[in-house]
Amino acid sequence: MPQAIAGFSKLSKDAKIEWVSKTFTQDKPEIKALLKQYWLEDQSLQQLHDEFIENTLSNFFLPLGVAPNFLINEQLYAIPMAIEESSVVAAAAKAAKFWLDRGGFKTEVLGTEKIGQVHFFYDGDTEKLQHFFEKLEPILRKDCAALTDNMEKRGGGISKIELRDKNSDLQHYYQIHAVFETANAMGANFINSCLEQFAKSLQREAAQSSLLAGSSIEVVMSILSNYVPQCVVKATVSCPVAELEGIEGASGEEFAKKMIQAVQIAKAEPHRAVTHNKGIMNGIDAVVIATGNDFRAVEAGVHAYAAKDGMYSSLTHASLQDGIFSFWIEVPLALGTVGGLTNLHPLVKWSLEVLQRPSAKQLMEIVAVAGLAQNFAALHALVTSGIQKGHMKMHLMNILNQLGATPSEKEQLIQEFKQQTATHSNVVQAFEKLRAASTK
Amino acid sequence: MPQAIAGFSKLSKDAKIEWVSKTFTQDKPEIKALLKQYWLEDQSLQQLHDEFIENTLSNFFLPLGVAPNFLINEQLYAIPMAIEESSVVAAAAKAAKFWLDRGGFKTEVLGTEKIGQVHFFYDGDTEKLQHFFEKLEPILRKDCAALTDNMEKRGGGISKIELRDKNSDLQHYYQIHAVFETANAMGANFINSCLEQFAKSLQREAAQSSLLAGSSIEVVMSILSNYVPQCVVKATVSCPVAELEGIEGASGEEFAKKMIQAVQIAKAEPHRAVTHNKGIMNGIDAVVIATGNDFRAVEAGVHAYAAKDGMYSSLTHASLQDGIFSFWIEVPLALGTVGGLTNLHPLVKWSLEVLQRPSAKQLMEIVAVAGLAQNFAALHALVTSGIQKGHMKMHLMNILNQLGATPSEKEQLIQEFKQQTATHSNVVQAFEKLRAASTK
Repeated sequence: MPQAIAGFSKLSKDAKIEWVSKTFTQDKPEIKALLKQYWLEDQSLQQLHDEFIENTLSNFFLPLGVAPNFLINEQLYAIPMAIEESSVVAAAAKAAKFWLDRGGFKTEVLGTEKIGQVHFFYDGDTEKLQHFFEKLEPILRKDCAALTDNMEKRGGGISKIELRDKNSDLQHYYQIHAVFETANAMGANFINSCLEQFAKSLQREAAQSSLLAGSSIEVVMSILSNYVPQCVVKATVSCPVAELEGIEGASGEEFAKKMIQAVQIAKAEPHRAVTHNKGIMNGIDAVVIATGNDFRAVEAGVHAYAAKDGMYSSLTHASLQDGIFSFWIEVPLALGTVGGLTNLHPLVKWSLEVLQRPSAKQLMEIVAVAGLAQNFAALHALVTSGIQKGHMKMHLMNILNQLGATPSEKEQLIQEFKQQTATHSNVVQAFEKLRAASTK
Repeated sequence: MPQAIAGFSKLSKDAKIEWVSKTFTQDKPEIKALLKQYWLEDQSLQQLHDEFIENTLSNFFLPLGVAPNFLINEQLYAIPMAIEESSVVAAAAKAAKFWLDRGGFKTEVLGTEKIGQVHFFYDGDTEKLQHFFEKLEPILRKDCAALTDNMEKRGGGISKIELRDKNSDLQHYYQIHAVFETANAMGANFINSCLEQFAKSLQREAAQSSLLAGSSIEVVMSILSNYVPQCVVKATVSCPVAELEGIEGASGEEFAKKMIQAVQIAKAEPHRAVTHNKGIMNGIDAVVIATGNDFRAVEAGVHAYAAKDGMYSSLTHASLQDGIFSFWIEVPLALGTVGGLTNLHPLVKWSLEVLQRPSAKQLMEIVAVAGLAQNFAALHALVTSGIQKGHMKMHLMNILNQLGATPSEKEQLIQEFKQQTATHSNVVQAFEKLRAASTK
C-alpha cells in the first residue's frame, strides 16, 4: 500500500511528479513524459499557469472554440466557448445562424444585486438587538470605508444592511444580511472582506453595549451568497410563426407547438427540467469558463433559482401569441470582467477581446444568450430528429479516432452507420471487419 | 459592424483564426500568435484535442493538480483535480491530512440507477393505454436487444419500464419511464439510444393497435434524465470529539459545536445552502473534469437533489453523539470510467491511472470524498479564521504576479499584507511605493 507524504506542497513540480509517478503509476517513464508534453515551452508563461492553484503538475486541456454569427441587440458577436462536450459549439452556431435571419437575440439586465451575510447566534431579547442594530448600521459602513471607497468610485458599494431574525428557522439564529453592487467585478473578495469587517465591528460593539449586557453574540461565519435571485438577465428570441415554416417538413404552427410542449413538459416534470436546464448550462458554462468566471458559483445560483418556487422547473419559457412565437430565458448570473482570472489568464483576455471587452452587464447578456441558444438547439433536435443523430456522429468520430482509423476508413464507416445505431462494440466490429477485408 | 459568415465550420483552423482575428481583434498579430502558442507541438495529438468539439481554435488551460494523502476505505489515494480556483487543491490536501490521522474517509454506494423517459401526448382513454402498454413492454425490450446485449454482459441493462400517467400535471401527458443500470459507463448514449428505439416501437405498435383506434399518440421527445436521486453515494468522516482538541485553541466540543452550527445554518437558510454546496462542488467538479466526466450533468443532478424536499438545503450533515463527531455527505453522482473522453483524453487516462483505474462505483466514492473534504475545509476555515485569510493570500500572489513583482518584492509585500486586507488598489499602491523606494 502507498505511503502518505508530508510537505508535498513544498516540493518542486518535478519532485511532485516523481512522487506521484513512483507511488501511483509504477514510475512508468511514458506517464511522466505525458504530463510534461502538455507544458508550455515558454517557462515564465507556464509558471503563471502553475501558480493559479496549488500542487499544479500540468495543464488540463479543454477545447477552446468559437460560435460565430450571434446577433445580440443588433450587434454581431462570435462567442468563445471552452467545453469538452461535442456538439455544444455546433449547436450554438446553428441556433445563432437560425436567429440571425429572424431578428437575433434581445436582452435585458433585470438586476445586479449581490448578497452577503454574517450568520450569528444571540441569546437575548430580539427588540434589544434591533435597537442595538440601528446604532450599529452606520458604524458598519464607516468601518468598511477603506474597502468601499474604491468600489464606490466604480459605481458599486453597499446598498443595504439589514438585521434578519431567523429564530423561526433555528433557535437564536440572526443575520446581518447585506446587499452589494460590485460594478464590473464578480465581487466575491470585496463582499467577503466587507462581511468579515462587519463581524469584527459587530463583536466589538456588542462587547461594549450596555443594551446587550447579559446576553452573548456568537458569530458563526461571514460569507457572500451564490444565491443571487436579484442579479438576473433576460434573453429573448421571437419571430412571426410563418418564419418557422418548413423545419423538417413541418408547418410553422406545428414546430412552435412542439417547442412549447417541450417547455411545458420541462415545467411540469422535474426529471425533464433537470436535463433541460443542464443543456442550458452547456452553453452558459462554456462561456463562463472561457471568460475566466467561476462556473461552480454560476451553477449553484442558477439551479437554486430553478428550484425557488418549491419545485425544480425550467429556466426557459415559450409562447405563441397573435402569430408571434417567443422563446426566452431568465437566469441569475453573477459575473465579472475585471479581477480574478480576467486580468491574468491569457486565453481569458483573448476571449474578452473577441467579445469587445464587455462590461459585467454585457457579459451577463452574452452568457444568457449562449444558454438560450443551447436550449433552442437542443429542443429543436429533440422534437424533430432526436438528440442522438448529432451526438452519435461525434461519438462515432471519437471511436474511430481512438481506433486509429484512416480518413478513407472513416468515410466508409460514417456511411455504414448512417443506417444503424453506433455503439462502441458494433463500431469496433465494423472497423475490424473493414481492416481485415483490406489486408486480405 | 462585423459581418456574419457562412460555412465557418468548414474552414481550416488557421482560416478560422484569421477570420476571428480580422473581424473581432483588429487582426493584431500578437493575438493570433497567442492562440497558437497554446497548441501542442505534436500535431496528431493536437488534432485529437481539436476533434473533441467543433470550431476548435486552441486549448483552454485549466491547472491540473493533485491532492495527496486521501485515506478512503483504508486505501491511500492522491486525487487529481482540474480547477482554476486557487485554494481548492490546498483545502482538499489539508482536509485529507487532517482525516488521515483520524481514520480516514468511509464510503458506501447507495444506488446506481439511471433514468430515461419517452415523453408523449395521448388523447384517448388511460385504461386502454395501460392495457396496450402491458403488451408493449416486452416488445420494447426485444426491439432494444441489439443495444442491450453488450450492456447486459457487463452487468447492466434495462431494469424497469413503466407507463406513467402525468395528466394531473399536464393534460394528455404520459411517459415511458425506464430505469437503467450502465455498469462502468455513464450511459448517456446507451440510454438515449434505447429511448429513441422505445419511441419508434411505441409509434409503430400504436399505429397497428385496435385498442388505441381513434386516439392519437404524439411523441415529443426521448431523453435520459440527469436527475438521479437513486444513483447516490455516501461518504463519512468521524472521530472521538477528543481528537478535535486544540484546533485554533478551541476544545474538541467547541469546534464540533461550531461545525454543527454551520451545517444547521446551511439546512435552515437557502442563501447559505447554495454557497455551502457550491464549495462542495469545487471539489467534486475538479475530479469530475480531471476524470473526463460531464460536470454540467453532475451539477444539475446534485443541485436538484439538494432541492428535492421543496427547500434548497445542505448536502452535508454533522452530528455529535456519544462523544463521536460525524460529518457526512449523500450526493447523486452519475459517472463513468469507460466511454466518452475516458478512453480518448490523455490527461483523463493519466488521472484514472493515478486513481488505480477505478470502477464507476469507486469513482463515485472518490468524488464524493473530494466534495466532503472541500466542505470540511471550508467550514473549518469559516468557523475559525474566516475564509478570506487563505483566499487573500492567493489573491495577493495573483496581483503580484500580474504586476511582475520580483521574489524579494513578493516576500516584503506578503509580510506587509499580513496585517491588512489586500484589495487590488492597495496592493498596487504598496507595490508602486516599494518600487519607487528601491529605484531612488
